Amino acid sequence: MPRHAAHALALALAGLPLAAQSPQPTPPTTAGVLAATTAADWRPLDAENTLVMEVAGGSVVIELSAAFAPGHAANVRALVREGFFDGLTVNRVQDNYVVQWGDGEEDEAKSRVPKVGKAALPAEFDRPAAGLPFTPNPDGDVYAPEAGWSGGFPAARDPKTGRAWMIHCYGVLGAGRGNTADSGGGAQLFVVTGHSPRHLDRNITAFGRVMKGIEHLTSLPRGTGPLGFYEKAEQRVPIRRVRMVADLPEAERPKLEVLRTDTDSFRALIEARRHRHEEWFLDPVGKVEVCNVPLPVREAKPAR
Amino acid sequence: MPRHAAHALALALAGLPLAAQSPQPTPPTTAGVLAATTAADWRPLDAENTLVMEVAGGSVVIELSAAFAPGHAANVRALVREGFFDGLTVNRVQDNYVVQWGDGEEDEAKSRVPKVGKAALPAEFDRPAAGLPFTPNPDGDVYAPEAGWSGGFPAARDPKTGRAWMIHCYGVLGAGRGNTADSGGGAQLFVVTGHSPRHLDRNITAFGRVMKGIEHLTSLPRGTGPLGFYEKAEQRVPIRRVRMVADLPEAERPKLEVLRTDTDSFRALIEARRHRHEEWFLDPVGKVEVCNVPLPVREAKPAR
Repeated sequence: MPRHAAHALALALAGLPLAAQSPQPTPPTTAGVLAATTAADWRPLDAENTLVMEVAGGSVVIELSAAFAPGHAANVRALVREGFFDGLTVNRVQDNYVVQWGDGEEDEAKSRVPKVGKAALPAEFDRPAAGLPFTPNPDGDVYAPEAGWSGGFPAARDPKTGRAWMIHCYGVLGAGRGNTADSGGGAQLFVVTGHSPRHLDRNITAFGRVMKGIEHLTSLPRGTGPLGFYEKAEQRVPIRRVRMVADLPEAERPKLEVLRTDTDSFRALIEARRHRHEEWFLDPVGKVEVCNVPLPVREAKPAR
Repeated sequence: MPRHAAHALALALAGLPLAAQSPQPTPPTTAGVLAATTAADWRPLDAENTLVMEVAGGSVVIELSAAFAPGHAANVRALVREGFFDGLTVNRVQDNYVVQWGDGEEDEAKSRVPKVGKAALPAEFDRPAAGLPFTPNPDGDVYAPEAGWSGGFPAARDPKTGRAWMIHCYGVLGAGRGNTADSGGGAQLFVVTGHSPRHLDRNITAFGRVMKGIEHLTSLPRGTGPLGFYEKAEQRVPIRRVRMVADLPEAERPKLEVLRTDTDSFRALIEARRHRHEEWFLDPVGKVEVCNVPLPVREAKPAR
């Protein structure tokens, strides 16, 4: 439709004076918006808050958000630095839900005990909205009074309570917990790998997202036990090692850049996703839901 | 919170006369609602509209909806019956989007030509809402004026236009197409395997859903070419054979039952998903988005 409509409009304008025949602006598309970004629209990964997890298939790069959950980000950093995750396993691969890793040992007496990091922390389900940048999605949200983006992460706010929280979109990282709020902390982590389970919002501490390599988690065999846990210990997928980017030698660091979500370029991207002007689209849609806006990540250009 | 709230309420009632102290009803949960269903709440698969696709990992059972797209359902049935899909391949596995199959041959002159079924059909993006059962989701929707369920499929309606269409939730089947509306038809099929790409609604003919075995598609290696296509022919995943359930010997037919979506039981399930009363939930949420309500499928009990 968009192409056809533009064509019809061009025909209609054919009889107008020349001054009115300025060329039709090309409707923005995702590709066009990204091509028009400048270096200032992008930021590097936060090396002190990004981990690289090596599993059989390759490396998974996950950025933590200290803005949303400072305690959890610091604790995961401490756990990574003491080598807590090295040699542990991916234990749960539940289709259309999550991939979860940590100590797969069911006998608590035998499970690995953190030496520096903590096994559990108070929840950080939400935080004050004040002080947090926020780019709203103009099309509303089923779950939250306001949905949008903050610091490169999907986020929501409630103006009545003045609170903000990270949204469980595809690829978001959370801290598994038991039945009490203070039973999480980051020793068990999960990534969302299905339709965004928004019922987890504010029920669990969400505090990061996968920046690269999610396919090494999402293509794993599904677990056949309850909740998608692997039924046999030998089915668990080994985690070779996890390192903070800041601790890796320069040559081993992922050179990724993230599109800033408080920029005109990102606002243009939202519009390009609300109104689909790619040739393939016959109906330009006109709306977008928060988890259907991609949060672009690119390889940084080599320094000159 | 729900357990705590119930406890607080019980304490508040302690001083009331005995007649008012009837036991608190257990708040409904998904498990409780399903346990309370009766045989009449379930229907068998529609054998004339359900196909079984055998890939390396196992069998994928997909029910087509003749109600939403009679032309596409009939054409896929014809294609299956002539063996069109047997020996073709899964060609596209795009993370957080779709798995797509059909003839992977890029040279049109060499691609398989249907003998009985048609290579392309007019689109069936939507249909009249009149005559279609519809159970609405009370919590609204970002994309559609009304979202809900019809005949066991996620669906939407627009009261102004009187049209209805199938929603692209996780697991929904669609007919791949080129840039024109009449370039689909079912010779190329895809299943949604990520966050529901609702921008596809009414841009493509959605007309079925996976009832069992989606993990045999979702755990496939991701394609590394543009749009998640496999870059090399040898990466494509063979489709051993596809059969309609009606054409299978009785012993080979999947014995599945689908919860009817026009029942009080399904309406109770919606409520159980809107208000999460499982012990794990600290915040009962209070809302649900259409693609976060499961559409239960179970193994039928053996006939006596």
